[in-house]
Amino acid sequence: MKLATIRDGSRDGQLAVVSRDLATAHLAPGVAPTLQRALDDWRFIAPQLQDLYETLNAGKARHAFAFDPAQCAAPLPRAYQWADGSAYVNHVELVRRARSADMPETFWTDPLMYQGGSDDLLGPCDDARFLSEDWGIDFEAEVAVVTDDVPMGSTPEQCAEHVRLLMLVNDWSLRNLIPAELAKGFGFFQSKPATAFGPVAVTPDELGDAWRDGKVHLPMLCHWNGRKVGEADAGVDMVFDFHRLVAHVARTRNVRAGSIVGSGTVSNKNVSKGWSCIAEVRALEMIESGKAQTGFMKFGDTIRIEMIGADGLSVFGAIAQTVARGTAGR
Amino acid sequence: MKLATIRDGSRDGQLAVVSRDLATAHLAPGVAPTLQRALDDWRFIAPQLQDLYETLNAGKARHAFAFDPAQCAAPLPRAYQWADGSAYVNHVELVRRARSADMPETFWTDPLMYQGGSDDLLGPCDDARFLSEDWGIDFEAEVAVVTDDVPMGSTPEQCAEHVRLLMLVNDWSLRNLIPAELAKGFGFFQSKPATAFGPVAVTPDELGDAWRDGKVHLPMLCHWNGRKVGEADAGVDMVFDFHRLVAHVARTRNVRAGSIVGSGTVSNKNVSKGWSCIAEVRALEMIESGKAQTGFMKFGDTIRIEMIGADGLSVFGAIAQTVARGTAGR
Repeated sequence: MKLATIRDGSRDGQLAVVSRDLATAHLAPGVAPTLQRALDDWRFIAPQLQDLYETLNAGKARHAFAFDPAQCAAPLPRAYQWADGSAYVNHVELVRRARSADMPETFWTDPLMYQGGSDDLLGPCDDARFLSEDWGIDFEAEVAVVTDDVPMGSTPEQCAEHVRLLMLVNDWSLRNLIPAELAKGFGFFQSKPATAFGPVAVTPDELGDAWRDGKVHLPMLCHWNGRKVGEADAGVDMVFDFHRLVAHVARTRNVRAGSIVGSGTVSNKNVSKGWSCIAEVRALEMIESGKAQTGFMKFGDTIRIEMIGADGLSVFGAIAQTVARGTAGR
Repeated sequence: MKLATIRDGSRDGQLAVVSRDLATAHLAPGVAPTLQRALDDWRFIAPQLQDLYETLNAGKARHAFAFDPAQCAAPLPRAYQWADGSAYVNHVELVRRARSADMPETFWTDPLMYQGGSDDLLGPCDDARFLSEDWGIDFEAEVAVVTDDVPMGSTPEQCAEHVRLLMLVNDWSLRNLIPAELAKGFGFFQSKPATAFGPVAVTPDELGDAWRDGKVHLPMLCHWNGRKVGEADAGVDMVFDFHRLVAHVARTRNVRAGSIVGSGTVSNKNVSKGWSCIAEVRALEMIESGKAQTGFMKFGDTIRIEMIGADGLSVFGAIAQTVARGTAGR
């Protein structure tokens, strides 16, 4: 099934079930007021949402309304955890090679992961506001899973049972703030501002065969200012599958319901597939010509991120954001 | 006022107002069911909680009950953000000197901060469970603030208006996992398991003169297995005050209500004040004799962390935890 959060002026919005073709939606207040509440008691709530989903798809839901992604908050407008991996090691290797840094061999066997801020997650059509273009504004197209409760020390096989939803992510990054933060050794912080999510979260069964081995086997379509720049296959070159990534999160601690775990920027070794973030094309340019030619995003730029299923339908709906100038202190 | 979250079997527990002397408590369901809900609408809710607090302190609350810290969850049992600074730069310098690593001068002017996991926060008397003693189990005694909404780019002066509550923190750390994680450059992750918090969150006015310049001017009392090991003054040697730390969090993004921002391990240059984490005494031993003699914590060890106000009352109640063996996968 497909689930969205409709803005209603509250911090958490209202949970809605969305039809498979993303044409119609139906609120579910009698089942669960918010997506977090559904995840808190997934085994009990999910079957009831599934019933409503089937009724809606059959065109028989009594209070269906036209679905409008612009009315959506992130499926989880605020979450208790957002942990982002870097599972496409090709991307990491390219970026490091561009700055003549060796990549430790362990990066192929031990996932890179950072803890992201999750108190303020952006909806699919929200403007992405920054105080300065000089920060090196970049998009990062990713997939993420949402878990229910995962006990500490769970194996990847055990973690597979806890993947409840999949989402589309735009992990906004401020490239020019990254080197200084990484040099400090405490990881990303200011260089990772609010992250945006696609209109609907979907249960893995929605992907059919495209969800297998803990990976999403579909192209990640990226359009920057209307020009297609990427169609990398998210199922190719993903060194650590989602079950492994969730197990990494759970190694030393219990993971609670509603935790979001991301794949990192999708990246294929086959360069004809383009790129899912500007940092990657800049790394390629640097390696090829010694100089990065493509600049980062400017105020007014647009980014569109989407995945189309085998049936031709948009799986998650599109992230379609505009970069905008923010105002400090309000 | 002083606020606690009483366990009731639900994920978020129930908000209670606690008397100044921590003797009695009173639920506040008619005002706000949870602390997060109170923070979501602080200006409206806080005065109502304050009324109840005054009635409780006067011994006139109708349904008061004996306050028992063992019944407490963390004031926020799960939070949307837990960002931890390292404001006592003395600690950072010592630990680095012990391993013959220089400390960049910028550490005195630009706060170190990491994003912590906030989906599973421990209550003051919860066992701290780990799968292995080999991970180098260590406590870290800290103070933290809780904010309401802070707009992106707010100045430290503006951030001062958004500090709503203070809490006591035990930021559990797995020292032997840290070097490999820092080497990867993405910051702490598995080396920072679930964090514990003191029984009550307090409004800054509860500290009187001890809260000034965005710092808590009180000793941090640490007892390890019943032996006092630390009484460092949290108001001394704090290079970045809380207003500055909150401004660091908000530099590139909006900060939402219920965000927890920590000070990092309290540490004084005056070594007679002892230490607030084992890593520090080990660093001192290493510098003095070339060898760390004090081992990390073992299963069965206890840690007690508390702050006593000028009036002789415990400000936050005590964190009193036992280290216990966890079981993988359940």
